[in-house]
Amino acid sequence: MRDLNEITITDEVVGAVAGGSNDRIRRISQALIRHLHNFVREVEPSQKEWEQGIDFLTQTGQMCSDVRQEFILLSDALGVSMLVDTINHRHPDGATETTVFGPFFVEDRQEFALGANISEGVPGVPLFVSGTVKDIAGSPIEGATVDSWHSDDEGFYDVQKGHDLAMRGRFNTDAGGRFWFWTVRPKFYPIPNDGPVGKMLEAQGRHPFRPEHVHFMIAAPDQETLVTHVFIDGDPYLDTDVVFGVKNSLVTGYRSCTPGIAPDGKNVDLPYLVLDYDFVLSPEKIP
Amino acid sequence: MRDLNEITITDEVVGAVAGGSNDRIRRISQALIRHLHNFVREVEPSQKEWEQGIDFLTQTGQMCSDVRQEFILLSDALGVSMLVDTINHRHPDGATETTVFGPFFVEDRQEFALGANISEGVPGVPLFVSGTVKDIAGSPIEGATVDSWHSDDEGFYDVQKGHDLAMRGRFNTDAGGRFWFWTVRPKFYPIPNDGPVGKMLEAQGRHPFRPEHVHFMIAAPDQETLVTHVFIDGDPYLDTDVVFGVKNSLVTGYRSCTPGIAPDGKNVDLPYLVLDYDFVLSPEKIP
Repeated sequence: MRDLNEITITDEVVGAVAGGSNDRIRRISQALIRHLHNFVREVEPSQKEWEQGIDFLTQTGQMCSDVRQEFILLSDALGVSMLVDTINHRHPDGATETTVFGPFFVEDRQEFALGANISEGVPGVPLFVSGTVKDIAGSPIEGATVDSWHSDDEGFYDVQKGHDLAMRGRFNTDAGGRFWFWTVRPKFYPIPNDGPVGKMLEAQGRHPFRPEHVHFMIAAPDQETLVTHVFIDGDPYLDTDVVFGVKNSLVTGYRSCTPGIAPDGKNVDLPYLVLDYDFVLSPEKIP
Repeated sequence: MRDLNEITITDEVVGAVAGGSNDRIRRISQALIRHLHNFVREVEPSQKEWEQGIDFLTQTGQMCSDVRQEFILLSDALGVSMLVDTINHRHPDGATETTVFGPFFVEDRQEFALGANISEGVPGVPLFVSGTVKDIAGSPIEGATVDSWHSDDEGFYDVQKGHDLAMRGRFNTDAGGRFWFWTVRPKFYPIPNDGPVGKMLEAQGRHPFRPEHVHFMIAAPDQETLVTHVFIDGDPYLDTDVVFGVKNSLVTGYRSCTPGIAPDGKNVDLPYLVLDYDFVLSPEKIP
């Protein structure tokens, strides 16, 4: 393999990775090489542009830390995360639709009793979140684990502010498949845009905003784990979500409530909002 | 743009980057999105494989430092660097062929007088390197800057060993377009394979070796800067260079010499090698 030209190099590189013992790695490697080479042949980058590409990827990797995942942001902003999500969730009709996981989930989150307030003192409009988890046949699922996380009323997650974990927690559904908790209303927000991905969005003439939403991850035995958001109707960014994650079936409204007895029987002395959404899990795929 | 599916998402993302003010960035962004989405649609990565991809890119970025450029290694090992190099050097017949720049060039290298020894005491077989720099019409170029760098006799560059700069330097050609210097013989070597790219090569069933070579970067007014290597005939890795960089016109042999008067008139009391190669620069492209 000497004297490769602009065309012959691709088959040569594809052939060079043909000897691995793992079929899946071989298939992914060969597809990556073909698509990457086609991209390069189409845009014909100058050496300087190639260097800028190397720099961009390097800076993206070096921006990553325990509380920042810039490559997930890049994947999100290029629509790759939603594409992968969609490919992996060709669900039976009736199951709740999925959307991106996002970069703000924290493994080390707390488990709360039903009805707890997870705002941890972060200021904002009180929000009562409730719902039911059912299987595809409509039966409520007891003991499903419901993870929820969201931003504060300025659009920042706890990990972005550097303070203690807040506005995130894990619950177990009751015998009726129900869960409920108190928190504060989130807000639309820009994805972190002080890094390479923010520069890319600016160069592409795009805003960095995601519409207001609450994240959910719901798991139960024999069910596929559901990763999704609930979005809020009327948000100005619903039609231009920077990560392309909005599905109409996931958009709902708040119910505005005056002070008084809340759905959980608690006496609330401020106006508050209720977000109620029922989730349907898809049966676990048999591999 | 809600309810995007596996197909419609691509046009939506391509459309989202259509508003930037820079035509080139728009074109590159749109091509990247299309080829990346086609790759994803072809291989249908699971969520776990997508996470592994994110981790791989993150680790690749975090491996980069002042003396290690893991993304260049990745580009090299996937044949992208050579493809970009080839696209950018569609040269007139007669100009010296190009090959990859590699990750071991150092900006802060020393300038030497012709005939200097750049080995800086690194042990190895003495090597006399010489050549002539000419333009495409065959006229010698006086005052061309000739950068050269290479590995030691174990296949390591100075920056990999963490010691002072050695086996690299910059020269100016004389009135006859000639340059010459002393150094030590390099060796074939593995590209740094203790990082993510090394793991990738292993998973792909590939060896990490590059055949023995000496790097050159040669610049002169009104000429395109030449980045190339000279390879050594008979090397066991000439036909399986891990970065796909070998061209037959760049392969030559050493001349083995017994102790005595060297080509520069110096009296050498050890056996030594001579590497002689003449370079032809291509006229600078008018943008």
